Amino acid sequence: MDTPRNASAAVVGAGDFIGGAITRRFAAGGYAVLAGRRNGEKLAPLVAEIEAAGGRCSGHTLDARKEEAIIEFLAEAERAAPLEVCVFNIGANVNFPILDTTERVFRKVWEMACYSGFLAGREAARLMLPRGRGTIIFTGATASLRGGSGYAAFASAKFGLRAVAQSMARELGPKGIHVAHLVIDAGVDTAWVRERRRERGQDSFEADELVNPASIAETYWQLHLQPRDAWTHELDLRPHGEKW
Amino acid sequence: MDTPRNASAAVVGAGDFIGGAITRRFAAGGYAVLAGRRNGEKLAPLVAEIEAAGGRCSGHTLDARKEEAIIEFLAEAERAAPLEVCVFNIGANVNFPILDTTERVFRKVWEMACYSGFLAGREAARLMLPRGRGTIIFTGATASLRGGSGYAAFASAKFGLRAVAQSMARELGPKGIHVAHLVIDAGVDTAWVRERRRERGQDSFEADELVNPASIAETYWQLHLQPRDAWTHELDLRPHGEKW
Amino acid sequence: MDTPRNASAAVVGAGDFIGGAITRRFAAGGYAVLAGRRNGEKLAPLVAEIEAAGGRCSGHTLDARKEEAIIEFLAEAERAAPLEVCVFNIGANVNFPILDTTERVFRKVWEMACYSGFLAGREAARLMLPRGRGTIIFTGATASLRGGSGYAAFASAKFGLRAVAQSMARELGPKGIHVAHLVIDAGVDTAWVRERRRERGQDSFEADELVNPASIAETYWQLHLQPRDAWTHELDLRPHGEKW
Amino acid sequence: MDTPRNASAAVVGAGDFIGGAITRRFAAGGYAVLAGRRNGEKLAPLVAEIEAAGGRCSGHTLDARKEEAIIEFLAEAERAAPLEVCVFNIGANVNFPILDTTERVFRKVWEMACYSGFLAGREAARLMLPRGRGTIIFTGATASLRGGSGYAAFASAKFGLRAVAQSMARELGPKGIHVAHLVIDAGVDTAWVRERRRERGQDSFEADELVNPASIAETYWQLHLQPRDAWTHELDLRPHGEKW
Repeated sequence: MDTPRNASAAVVGAGDFIGGAITRRFAAGGYAVLAGRRNGEKLAPLVAEIEAAGGRCSGHTLDARKEEAIIEFLAEAERAAPLEVCVFNIGANVNFPILDTTERVFRKVWEMACYSGFLAGREAARLMLPRGRGTIIFTGATASLRGGSGYAAFASAKFGLRAVAQSMARELGPKGIHVAHLVIDAGVDTAWVRERRRERGQDSFEADELVNPASIAETYWQLHLQPRDAWTHELDLRPHGEKW
Repeated sequence: MDTPRNASAAVVGAGDFIGGAITRRFAAGGYAVLAGRRNGEKLAPLVAEIEAAGGRCSGHTLDARKEEAIIEFLAEAERAAPLEVCVFNIGANVNFPILDTTERVFRKVWEMACYSGFLAGREAARLMLPRGRGTIIFTGATASLRGGSGYAAFASAKFGLRAVAQSMARELGPKGIHVAHLVIDAGVDTAWVRERRRERGQDSFEADELVNPASIAETYWQLHLQPRDAWTHELDLRPHGEKW
Repeated sequence: MDTPRNASAAVVGAGDFIGGAITRRFAAGGYAVLAGRRNGEKLAPLVAEIEAAGGRCSGHTLDARKEEAIIEFLAEAERAAPLEVCVFNIGANVNFPILDTTERVFRKVWEMACYSGFLAGREAARLMLPRGRGTIIFTGATASLRGGSGYAAFASAKFGLRAVAQSMARELGPKGIHVAHLVIDAGVDTAWVRERRRERGQDSFEADELVNPASIAETYWQLHLQPRDAWTHELDLRPHGEKW
Repeated sequence: MDTPRNASAAVVGAGDFIGGAITRRFAAGGYAVLAGRRNGEKLAPLVAEIEAAGGRCSGHTLDARKEEAIIEFLAEAERAAPLEVCVFNIGANVNFPILDTTERVFRKVWEMACYSGFLAGREAARLMLPRGRGTIIFTGATASLRGGSGYAAFASAKFGLRAVAQSMARELGPKGIHVAHLVIDAGVDTAWVRERRRERGQDSFEADELVNPASIAETYWQLHLQPRDAWTHELDLRPHGEKW
């Protein structure tokens, strides 16, 4: 654990894998981390682990599609310490033939993966702008750049989130806020991905075949550390053996 | 006017400029055209003009954000003649600093420029697929490819619409449906654009400085005529003098 | 055949398929066409066919990598009639593992597919600029946008050609010259492509599985016809069933 | 200085700014660094500085457009210690109207900025592949992604280099070689850039208005440290206030 800083980091979408790893990384870096996810009680083990290691973390139930909930979540972070980092990490990967993509699915996926990212980014910027500093990072995917067959809903939301990131980066960079978009172009090593690959008949996994959440978290950390004369807005990330 | 065909074309977003010109072009090509826009009564002069020239056109009030309204609009086209063409042409160009982009604006722009495009595309595909033929075209803009400062809402919707177009093209091309996305990377010659440029101090306009809606309509027509061994999914369009 | 115009078109790379079809199309459109290729004598049947149909065409041996040869070829076109169209259509599709890509291959592929395109474009522009009109079109490929494994030489040349096209379009558009780049993202129906697919075990071909050269030529023609208020710089082209 | 490693790094294009900073960074990381540039004698102060700090560096005169010279340069690195890193950093930024872009300029810029990158990448891969590890990084620029007016030669070379990087990454990633392409989308803080900006009338420079070469070098270093389950192929880099 690094020395505690008088600064907070908010993780919107602190799931079991990427979001959890990001939470760990910023806590290890000395930040007071607020982790938010749908079922906040699931965060208890993560919070306990971080606190046991001497870090600061609190877990929160958060429906990121609610403007008031986002505002309150970030205000809570700001009360802990000045908000310096906000990571948006909610996905909603679904695949349906276009005729089977209901308007409800299309709308829900957008609300989760794009609209709530806009809310989180905007409200984080509102807190950071008066201080002229801060980092806002959005998690992207292959579908952020390519609308594959069956991905109308998911790719549409991810394309839309990427536009939010770009637009915010162009407006806020000159005001001292670093906005980045990270394209994870591969399967991440999660229980869900392993299960889906097993369903497709894959029996074994090679070392480094899937992206380790901790590696992603380290990349977020490095982005945050970049000095402001050399900021990255977008980068891709994939395991060495990935076809692309 | 070409000889009438036993085929209909639907224009979702038949405004005074691009949408109107597309309506004219497909009517001239022998299609029974259904033109839809927010205030259907404004379509009366266009319908009269087309009918006077011997073409077929009907004007409809359409709130394209309503699933039922889209379904009914396209069913109406199908009743006139088998639906062969659907053009989605609703924009919602707004510019706000990120902190002033309300959740209401963000949502409305998306509903108009992305969600309703998804609905129109999906329902047109539903009618076309059993016949294994048809053309679906989406109107894009500079903001489909670039999230400029102040364009978080508009670019997010336009990026999202582009993803829908790509995803549909990849799924439906092999099934005989041509899905295209046209990026208009310039000001179109409309009263609104001229007014905005005058506000910025521009007094006079050179010939061909702005895109003529009829030229755009001709491009849609040419896309529709492409044989299925050589389909274009995406193309850009700008006046010769445009900076880009 | 359209009425003869007092205008010439030059096709650099008038091979048996795409280049030949372009030659036919512009001759049919009333242009005096100069067709150039490595072995000019192979153009005799094409010239005879066009002349028999009442068109104007001459075939020339052309090494497009030689500056003087390009200058002389275009001067010859200009002597026939003012040069209004120049199409660059030389490819050099090779695939080698990177370690087996000799410097000679890398250089030759670049000279054929990129450097000679620069020469042709620049010299065509030199003739067209005083009149403030003309169309210059470059033929691209999937490899213009994606550096696939084994395609270091070919993709490098095609990326490079695309940059030349973009740079020329931005400089010359305001001066009345239309510069376009057409991305053919698929196999074209040539003897060579059919042979390679047979080698991979494909026995039969569906209708419209491959792009018909005449369809490509028609697209070039339509690009040339675009009015200058609505020019396309780049478009893709693929058969309806293509995976992409 | 980190503990010396039994590994070497080669910098092709070790100029006064970016290349020099990269040389410093990898020497500080414990690598035996071979720095190559046109006039090797200019490297004496850099070598002295690194050695005084306890690092290992040797300076070499290198014409990177000569295959034999590249082979010998990398062999020299390999003799020092197994080659683990190769950075290609030669630019050739020129701007000419298309009609004034001589074939000599077009060819020279390509030889310097693209062809020599291919040679360096290929030969580094040849040494690294038997060990199944290594990092090869290419320096890109705004012109790697955009062919601006007047940049036909430079953008063509930079696009071409980007294709080489992509193609190598796709082939060599699965074999354990990390190939990356870094897009520097801004002016770098060099004497030349400051001079050009002064010519355009800029009197003073804000802090962090230009990219610091040391920041770029740190990014190369971080790319090299990425674990192989999470490699970045491409990222951009610009100062916070840059317009893009």
